Amino acid sequence: MQIVNGFSKFSRSEKLNWLNRETNLSQQTLEILDTHLHREEAIQEVYGDLSENTVSNYYLPLGLAPNFLINGDLMTLPMVIEESSVVAAASHSAKFWALHGGFHTNVLGTSKVGQVHFTWSGDPETLQAIFNQNMVLLLNSVTPMTRKMEKRGGGITSMEIHSAHPELPRHYHLFVRFKTADAMGANFINSVLESLASQLSQMLENDVSEGRLEIIMSILSNYTPESLVQCYVEAKTEVFRNMSPELSADQFARKFQQAADIATHDPYRAVTHNKGIFNGMDALILATGNDFRAVEACGHAYASRNGSYSSLSRVDVSEGSFRFSLEVPLSVGTVGGLTGVHPMARASLEILGNPSAELLMQITAAAGLANNFSAIRSLITTGIQQGHMKMHLGNMLRQLKASKEETRRATRYFANRTLSYSDLSAYLDSIRNQNQQE
Amino acid sequence: MQIVNGFSKFSRSEKLNWLNRETNLSQQTLEILDTHLHREEAIQEVYGDLSENTVSNYYLPLGLAPNFLINGDLMTLPMVIEESSVVAAASHSAKFWALHGGFHTNVLGTSKVGQVHFTWSGDPETLQAIFNQNMVLLLNSVTPMTRKMEKRGGGITSMEIHSAHPELPRHYHLFVRFKTADAMGANFINSVLESLASQLSQMLENDVSEGRLEIIMSILSNYTPESLVQCYVEAKTEVFRNMSPELSADQFARKFQQAADIATHDPYRAVTHNKGIFNGMDALILATGNDFRAVEACGHAYASRNGSYSSLSRVDVSEGSFRFSLEVPLSVGTVGGLTGVHPMARASLEILGNPSAELLMQITAAAGLANNFSAIRSLITTGIQQGHMKMHLGNMLRQLKASKEETRRATRYFANRTLSYSDLSAYLDSIRNQNQQE
Repeated sequence: MQIVNGFSKFSRSEKLNWLNRETNLSQQTLEILDTHLHREEAIQEVYGDLSENTVSNYYLPLGLAPNFLINGDLMTLPMVIEESSVVAAASHSAKFWALHGGFHTNVLGTSKVGQVHFTWSGDPETLQAIFNQNMVLLLNSVTPMTRKMEKRGGGITSMEIHSAHPELPRHYHLFVRFKTADAMGANFINSVLESLASQLSQMLENDVSEGRLEIIMSILSNYTPESLVQCYVEAKTEVFRNMSPELSADQFARKFQQAADIATHDPYRAVTHNKGIFNGMDALILATGNDFRAVEACGHAYASRNGSYSSLSRVDVSEGSFRFSLEVPLSVGTVGGLTGVHPMARASLEILGNPSAELLMQITAAAGLANNFSAIRSLITTGIQQGHMKMHLGNMLRQLKASKEETRRATRYFANRTLSYSDLSAYLDSIRNQNQQE
Repeated sequence: MQIVNGFSKFSRSEKLNWLNRETNLSQQTLEILDTHLHREEAIQEVYGDLSENTVSNYYLPLGLAPNFLINGDLMTLPMVIEESSVVAAASHSAKFWALHGGFHTNVLGTSKVGQVHFTWSGDPETLQAIFNQNMVLLLNSVTPMTRKMEKRGGGITSMEIHSAHPELPRHYHLFVRFKTADAMGANFINSVLESLASQLSQMLENDVSEGRLEIIMSILSNYTPESLVQCYVEAKTEVFRNMSPELSADQFARKFQQAADIATHDPYRAVTHNKGIFNGMDALILATGNDFRAVEACGHAYASRNGSYSSLSRVDVSEGSFRFSLEVPLSVGTVGGLTGVHPMARASLEILGNPSAELLMQITAAAGLANNFSAIRSLITTGIQQGHMKMHLGNMLRQLKASKEETRRATRYFANRTLSYSDLSAYLDSIRNQNQQE
């Protein structure tokens, strides 16, 4: 392979011809790339324009999880996820809790954050004094950009100078809080910050006797601990009386709490525990055209805020009552960005009744808590593999076009064996050969 | 809306009819759900079976990032991502570094982790003694499950009893390390752990005089700090001489280091910095059918391992040399799971030359470092918005079918204004009306 120049200017077929010459793709792969284009040119153009050098689309199945009772309203959640059993787990959990009061959610804040990082060679107090004198001027300088957001209830809500860190002398940042209404607000925040940075520079240029200011960079922070949502389910422990033939309702509640407590204290468990929460949350984030990298980075950093990585959910059991709660920062939008452009994101938002950003935070948290509940329930009763493998085996049997009898025999055979597609295929071949010989 | 029973048993059209009755979907949404099914029934069945209650597919564009020179081999990376500019950023960075030695990568380990959590009422030393006596027996009990993995170079590599945490008296876990060859190994690890748990129970059942053991749960950990990959680029700082009209090569290198150092010490910046790394990594993880929730949870927990959330990459500049490196835990597979089932994941792996899991770790890390490099470069030179907005504006103008003249005027008009689809659309309407009146 040789370095290729001007690749982004190639047409789609030029790109694929080049790739084929360099890597010798199979006919099957070339066909797969073709058949995954959307059948309507105008819609395909939308997908092609979302990213660069696009040659096809990657499919993630969109499933429906009904029976989510959230603050008294029943909803059906569109979930986009490639991992089997996530939608099933969400649905089971949703239905169980719909019969026991549902999910209670609460938005604790929606503050977004941006920073202008800079160095200042002079005295810190002088910097602070100059900033205090000029703050109104600075805010006024960006009103042409913030006016529209202010009409929607957003805008800049605070602005402070912070020194960076003891290890970084002379480093400071402007720490700006924003409200961005129903938008995630990345473009808005970054545009305002870049403008503030250039104003800040100009402001201090005139008076270099006190010190020199140099801008390093201006950018939103994906860490938004004050854009926070809470979600919980609550019931008498007796609702768990049919959870397991081996556990009484109280035993189930206690064992559930044990499992959650382990995730509070053991980072090896906490990571997997939280990963299960994100299984549910990301499925909503993807479906609605939001940015799962932003949500993941923020949520996991929040999970480590007390110095040791810990779980995002907790369980309280006392006097026959069970409460399971999740607190997670989420920065999401239901207008702007991909939400208005991506056809399937638009469809997902319609399925949800075109929610506000605050409502989407709450729905997303409920999906996370629902999946967390199902995962712990499986882990402390049947084990995670039984459900997984049953589903996995079922899918593979369907793909291998197994008959009812073959399905019955394979299910028995693989009950105590590790399952793989090749083993299953070999097993079916063996019983099919056997039948032919009989 | 009412609680629905037996929803998972409904056919696709029954599901959609029910949803439509409950939420009154638009004709457009129903059409979108239909037209996003794959045109070939057999392929659509594969996607439908990946998850549950599936009614359509969510499209993420697949783009190509050429010119990745990794340990001397040139590669083209398939990247699946909905965020504009990620593939462009990766490609720019790849081409730049291909001319300056490329990416150097190194796998530091591939250990996976699983835990059997349990309580033990007796003396800890007795537990340890019983475990030591029975360890071989325990390992032998799972050889029917591990034999095949051992042939591929994997299997169990260590097994220890750990006490859980001072806050959790009488809680312990069996801490098991695995190698899983080219598989991510989740099903394998969970099956082995569940079997070990049941053996462990049986082993101690006979001798309850010393204490009682109760299994809480058995599950792999997504935290795999010993499945670790390193990646770096390195050059004389003079390679940066054309990076910016305002910065000399040395100034660029120093400012780049400043930006990276801020991300080391400031969690608000570290989260966004690492998010940019995951932009590139997740695009590979998605394309190859791996689990981005697992990779995200692990990587961010690793970023917090020293008690404060920090950046995963670092910069060293000394004596005219620049080195930019990333160290990140990655647990990925190139066989098993979705990799063999998802048609587009198979295509992506073929584009990459069907790599081993270790090679995929290295490619993924290179994509992460490439995106991190481009992000910092933009931030410290033109700012992040210039590139973003240019691309964003271009896409929207294409969608609004703007003429060359309209494109020229809109580009000038929005140079100093916040861009939104509705504003752009209104602006185009206004100049189109103007033209009609002339």
